[in-house]
Amino acid sequence: MSAVDQQALFQFLLRMGDNTLVLGHRVSEWCGHAPVLEEDIALANTALDLIGQTQFWLGLAGEVEGKGQDADALAFRRDVWDFRNFLICEMPNGDFGQTLMRQFLFDAWASVTLAHLQTSSDERVAGIAAKASKEVAYHLERSADTVVGLGDGTEESHKRMQAALEYLWPYVGEMFVSDDVDTAMVAAGIAPDPASLRAEYDAIITRVLTQATLDIPQSAFAHKGGRDGSIHTEHLGHLLTSMQWLQRVYPDASW
Amino acid sequence: MSAVDQQALFQFLLRMGDNTLVLGHRVSEWCGHAPVLEEDIALANTALDLIGQTQFWLGLAGEVEGKGQDADALAFRRDVWDFRNFLICEMPNGDFGQTLMRQFLFDAWASVTLAHLQTSSDERVAGIAAKASKEVAYHLERSADTVVGLGDGTEESHKRMQAALEYLWPYVGEMFVSDDVDTAMVAAGIAPDPASLRAEYDAIITRVLTQATLDIPQSAFAHKGGRDGSIHTEHLGHLLTSMQWLQRVYPDASW
Repeated sequence: MSAVDQQALFQFLLRMGDNTLVLGHRVSEWCGHAPVLEEDIALANTALDLIGQTQFWLGLAGEVEGKGQDADALAFRRDVWDFRNFLICEMPNGDFGQTLMRQFLFDAWASVTLAHLQTSSDERVAGIAAKASKEVAYHLERSADTVVGLGDGTEESHKRMQAALEYLWPYVGEMFVSDDVDTAMVAAGIAPDPASLRAEYDAIITRVLTQATLDIPQSAFAHKGGRDGSIHTEHLGHLLTSMQWLQRVYPDASW
Repeated sequence: MSAVDQQALFQFLLRMGDNTLVLGHRVSEWCGHAPVLEEDIALANTALDLIGQTQFWLGLAGEVEGKGQDADALAFRRDVWDFRNFLICEMPNGDFGQTLMRQFLFDAWASVTLAHLQTSSDERVAGIAAKASKEVAYHLERSADTVVGLGDGTEESHKRMQAALEYLWPYVGEMFVSDDVDTAMVAAGIAPDPASLRAEYDAIITRVLTQATLDIPQSAFAHKGGRDGSIHTEHLGHLLTSMQWLQRVYPDASW
């Protein structure tokens, strides 16, 4: 491991963990509010899986950073500009359809990425990926089914899913932008180049969205700035005020 | 002042200051979102007035408490259960009409109360009341005019104002419930008995709401618990996470 740029590895792990943390928190906002009980429980379970994955990613990130920060410290004591999640993860829930469309677009990325990470040269990364893959395979099955069910559903549900897809589409491109951190990870055999995963991703979403009778937007425009922390949306700050409140007000509280 | 129960006086001052703080924060949420520019500025000014009054009330409260807490400490470092505002102040903004109805129902109370407080035996209280009265007279004129304009407006605006009145009405009664703190304030000549102000209040709101062609609900049911801190609505916690975030994350920050 000595040859690996530890700062780049730390950034890579933050990116993985911040995606699941921020999306997990967003999904947890549905708890008690989903349209039917089964969906409510399913969403809560998805949120729990994502937060569980966060524990692993951010736990390892803190270890690699070597400054004594554990997963909780990284989750609850950083400010907006320190977060490294894709912007799509912080986008508002909107209606149930928009939440499931966001979930599907993320699950497809996670599924492809985690499959590759299972052969990571860093066995800690490979181990987390192996565990998370099983959960994500189920998330993807579920979100894809819902996207098809609602997209190829009533006139109203179709209209909403098409609107959700168009709203979220400009946030898909960020998942496949490579930078210096990725170059370092590729060189060390730790992670694949994000840009190299696009074809696999497109194959999945094209199949599902076509089955859902939805039009896939053609625009290649992509909002960026979440993954490198240069620009987050206004939504993240509001999410953090709520997510971090308890630990900010009662530091080191335990129960 | 030695004869006055300082703990009761502290509670009384918290009640005054928490009302203006919580309502002021609520009104400030409109900043940049009001339907027309003039209303946006007017609401921001109202919020500023209320926060300014808060500085006086909570500043004096901290002085009376004598534990070294200034207005900022009281505003930003207490949790839900320490707040002593009327529940109506923490109710969500809803639409513009609901915000102005809430403002009118509060302004009428503030106007009556502050008029009496100007003759307080505590000259610090009388001084704050004299200053605040001028601002509140203007707030009341403005909110009453808007209630009349929208109540006696289009079919749609009338419907919304009637709905707002019905939504907020169960929170009016709390303003006129007296307890031990009030008894102590009356005995010391510091403040009037809230229950004694109801007739004056009803005269104002009956005149305005009648002119607004709105039906005044007949129910005497009143939600309580804000002013004595025993029960707040869920809304207050969310408001505080947002309002207190900066000071919680960056304690003692200055600029």
